[in-house]
This record gives sequence, C-alpha cells and structure tokens, in this order.
Amino acid sequence: MQVAIYGYGNLGKGVENAIKQNADMTLFGVFTRRNPESLTLSTKDAKVYSCDDILKYKDDIDVLIICGGSATDLPEMTPYLAEHFNVIDSFDTHADIPKHFDLVDEKAKIGNKTAIISVGWDPGMFSLNRVLANAILPDGNDYTFWGKGVSQGHSDAIRRIDGVQDARQYTVPVESAMSKVRSGLNPTLTTREKHTRECFVVAKEGADLERIEREIKTMPKYFADYDTTVTFISQEELDKNHKGIPHGGVVIRTGKTGKDLENNHVIEYKLTLDSNPEFTASVLVCYARACYRKNQKGEFGCKTVLDVSPSEISLIDNETLRKIML
Amino acid sequence: MQVAIYGYGNLGKGVENAIKQNADMTLFGVFTRRNPESLTLSTKDAKVYSCDDILKYKDDIDVLIICGGSATDLPEMTPYLAEHFNVIDSFDTHADIPKHFDLVDEKAKIGNKTAIISVGWDPGMFSLNRVLANAILPDGNDYTFWGKGVSQGHSDAIRRIDGVQDARQYTVPVESAMSKVRSGLNPTLTTREKHTRECFVVAKEGADLERIEREIKTMPKYFADYDTTVTFISQEELDKNHKGIPHGGVVIRTGKTGKDLENNHVIEYKLTLDSNPEFTASVLVCYARACYRKNQKGEFGCKTVLDVSPSEISLIDNETLRKIML
Repeated sequence: MQVAIYGYGNLGKGVENAIKQNADMTLFGVFTRRNPESLTLSTKDAKVYSCDDILKYKDDIDVLIICGGSATDLPEMTPYLAEHFNVIDSFDTHADIPKHFDLVDEKAKIGNKTAIISVGWDPGMFSLNRVLANAILPDGNDYTFWGKGVSQGHSDAIRRIDGVQDARQYTVPVESAMSKVRSGLNPTLTTREKHTRECFVVAKEGADLERIEREIKTMPKYFADYDTTVTFISQEELDKNHKGIPHGGVVIRTGKTGKDLENNHVIEYKLTLDSNPEFTASVLVCYARACYRKNQKGEFGCKTVLDVSPSEISLIDNETLRKIML
Repeated sequence: MQVAIYGYGNLGKGVENAIKQNADMTLFGVFTRRNPESLTLSTKDAKVYSCDDILKYKDDIDVLIICGGSATDLPEMTPYLAEHFNVIDSFDTHADIPKHFDLVDEKAKIGNKTAIISVGWDPGMFSLNRVLANAILPDGNDYTFWGKGVSQGHSDAIRRIDGVQDARQYTVPVESAMSKVRSGLNPTLTTREKHTRECFVVAKEGADLERIEREIKTMPKYFADYDTTVTFISQEELDKNHKGIPHGGVVIRTGKTGKDLENNHVIEYKLTLDSNPEFTASVLVCYARACYRKNQKGEFGCKTVLDVSPSEISLIDNETLRKIML
C-alpha cells in the first residue's frame, strides 16, 4: 500500500514514523507547501514534493493522509483532495463535522474515492467508544474527562498575553469527580468540577506577574470557568520539564440493566499518551488501511470511524484474528 | 424488529429485559426445551413456545438470540438454527471458535442468513478492543485481567467436592500487577502473579474442613496455580452476601511510537459489571440489530464482533451519530 503524507508538522512526522511500524505500507512521499528542498525525511527512498504537483501522482498513491490544522487547512484541503485520492484526516472541530462530512462526501463520490474524516482519539477512538457503550447500555450517562495533558490552544492563548515569553498549559481531570462517576452515582458536574488548568509561564524580564496571572485566570472561555493555577518558571525549566506533548483522557458510560434497572455497569475507555500527535498519527495510519480496503470494495464517499469494523483496520487476516484475538 | 429468545436461563432472562430497553425491538417470544406452560415471562404479549416448533415461525422472526451453554448446547444449536434464522450467540470456548465459525458459516450461507457468534464481553468487547489496540500500536504488549467477579465454573468445581454444600468463587486481579502494566514496565506475569482466587464455602455438617480446603487449593487447573483463600461461611451468609453475579475486567495494551520508539502509550478498556449475564445480554441485543441489518444488506454467512462497525449496532441514525457522538 503506497501511502503519502500531506503536511509535515508534528502530526505528519508522527505518521511517517507510524508507517514504518506497519509492514504492509510504504511511504510514497511527503507533500509540502514549503520549499521541498528545505525538508529532510527520516525515511530513506521517500521523496518530498511540492503540494502544487500532487495531481501528477494520482495513480501512484493508494491513500493520502492529510496532516493539516482543523481551523483553516482541512476544511479546504480534504474536500479538494478527496475527489482525486483516497484520503484520511483528523478534523477535530466537533461542531463543524457534519458540514465537513457533506463537503468531502460529495467530492469523494464524484471521483469514486473513499474518505475517512475526524480520525484520531477525540474525535476518533473516544467517539467509537461512546457509540458502542451507548448501544450496549441505552439507559445511562456519558462522561468524558481529558488529561492530564497539554492543550496547545490554551498554551497559545497564554502566549498572546503581553509580557509572556513562553507557556505550557495542562488540562487535569479532577480525581474526585472521576471517582464519583465510576461509583455509579451519576453526578451532574459543572465545567469547574470536571477539570482544573495548570499553567507554567515564562515571563519577559520586568513584566508585571500579578497582571499576567490575573489576565490568565479571568480569560473568558479558556480559563474563567476553571480553577486555574499559574506558576512562573524560567525558560530553562520549561524547556527541560515541559517540552513533551502528553495527553489522554477517559470516556466512561454508566448504565443500568435488569427487570427494575437494579444492576449498575461501568464501561471505561482510557488513554495515557506520551505523545498526543504520535498517537493520533498511529490511529490515522491504521484507518488509512481501512480507507484503501473500503475503496477496493467499492465503498465510495465519506466515512468516519463509526463506519469501520475492527477487522478492517487490522493488518492480520480475519481467520487469524478469530483464532488469536477473539 | 421481531426478536426471539432461544433458551430461558439467566442469559435469556437478561435478553428479555434488554429488549425492553431498545425501542426498535419487540420480543416475539421465548423458545424452550422445557414445558412451555412452566415458564412465565415478564413481557406482556410475548408467548412461550416449544423448541420443537421453531421452524413454523421462520417468517415471523427477524433475529433469534440463542442463549445456550457453550459446552454442549451452542455447538449443536447455532449451526442448526443458522440455516433458518438470522442468529446470534455468545459462544465463549475460545479455542473452539474457528471450528464453530466454519460450521455456522456454512449453514447460514445455505439459507441466505446472517449469524454473529461469540458476542458478549470476552469474547466480544474485549476481543474488539484487543484488535483495535493492536492495530493502533503494532509494537506493544497485551494484558487481560478478569474480575473481581464470580466464576461459575470454579464455583461448580468446589461444589463437586465431598462435604461441600454450596460455594462461590471470586476471581480477583492482583492490583500491583495491573499497576506495573499501566506504568509501561511490560512485565512478564505468571498465572499466580495476575489473579488470586477467593472461595466462600458452605460445608455440610460434620465435614472435614481441613480436607476440603486442601482439596480446593491443590485442585489442578482450577486452583493449584493460584494463591487461593478459602473461607467457610454459613448458608445464610452466602445467600445474603454472595448471591450476585458481578464480574468485569480490563484489557490493556501498552505500546511504543516515535523515531526511536521513545514514547509510551497505554490503551485500557475496563468493565465493572453488577451482573455478568445481564451485561452479556445487553451486548447480544445490540449486535442482534447489526445481524438483522447485515442480512438486509445481503451480507450472509457467519460474522463476529470484529466484522461489525459501531454504527451498525446503534439505534441512532448515522447523521445524528456524527452530530452528537463524534
């Protein structure tokens, strides 16, 4: 299977590494908006191409993994490319998924191509687990906790404050809230009760630390609804202790069964990830396999992880899967 | 969707309750090997039929949920019934799944019917999670822990000992072993290191308690390879505190990604169940939906949970799923 990468940031690099872990895949190359000569891949024999030339390689690429941002890149890239390639993306603006789906679906069907959008862990594996758990336990409640992990968006918001040189923000789930959920109490939880926010900030020399802390803690949407802690540290300390991109979280469904709904059940799916982009990349790569297989079977148009069966993403054949994994 | 139940033990009763929780399903009736008049259903308008008459109702039943035992019932029942009905079962003898699959597949294809076998939580949701996690993290290790929960087979084995009146056995996962796994240490664990076995035993009057305890602890396969505790209690206490059928467990995959496989990830799927048969029944019922849908689409033959997509088991339509669950 010839796989190509479109966009070479953290996610694209993660995809490159993940492809090496899958014996049925070869990296055809990386397409970039930058000068191709400015990039060096870690994969021998794979080339860097300019995005502008991509249509020349229509017949050489089995699946194209689009590694752009959800804000402005993917809404344009994925529909455009879906007409010419089997594509997969990690579009994660939850509210805009239906619109994105429709645009991609239309284009993919024109070209008899298959697209799978919003692949990753949330949306992605978390969504899949929400759907499974809801189908199994129709009478119940859903809970999602994120972290402990780095929120890039919140880190960026802090960096935009006057006097801030650098920052890293961690989203932290509240353990006592998770315990209540796991015990089947079905609590109603406010935003503040579910997560706290820990900020590590490097201030510019002479900056007003009190003002920075106040601006962070009162920032609408990002911090005002949370218990937020701000710790000022040096650039050296941030570089040493906070350069990773860990993340994770847990999806829990609690539900009842029985003649009088007298029995409680808890279904829990938990991820603990050293590298958010590399894990997302690993999910993208195995769903790229499903994308190609679905296209071979004539299943054209746009799909999501909800339309893919477990065996479609596995390198192992069905007979062996039944023997060793069922 | 008209659903029928074949067999009315704990599992069949669980299926009856679960059907009531799913608005698109109606219980057509229950088929039993016992005298139909000896059973009283909790569902109004549903009838009890003799197993011998089932072929008369070929055109009235959309899916038949077979609730028999894996040792002797299902190997005969499922292939026989799969020729005439869309069927689903919870066959859980892992080693015999390939053979069972082939027998059912052949019969279902003759009748243009669809069967889904080995549905439940292990095999079932645990298998599904093993396959997904292995596809996402090809370089890694799998761990499954069971419990805390009642093992019916081990309880029965104790009851067969001379001098034992009643017994209940709990399988308990070793917390320190699970912690090691979750921390990414990739330990190699012996049987003894993974689970302990707690036995609550009611002895007959005058029985030799020391002999009973010794016979339990040295019983090959069942207990000899485990750290086992035996506690003698009264029948009253057993009836009061040990009549539930809780179970559960956790499937963990730890794996590595990155250029030099330097990043660790943990994927964990955990079930905590008040009632083992009722949860299994709930899984059977939503996969019955998928079974019927696959038959409508012309997907004949035998399938497993590995061949079913999340949206196929959901009562909610795909467009709404994408909007609210993705």
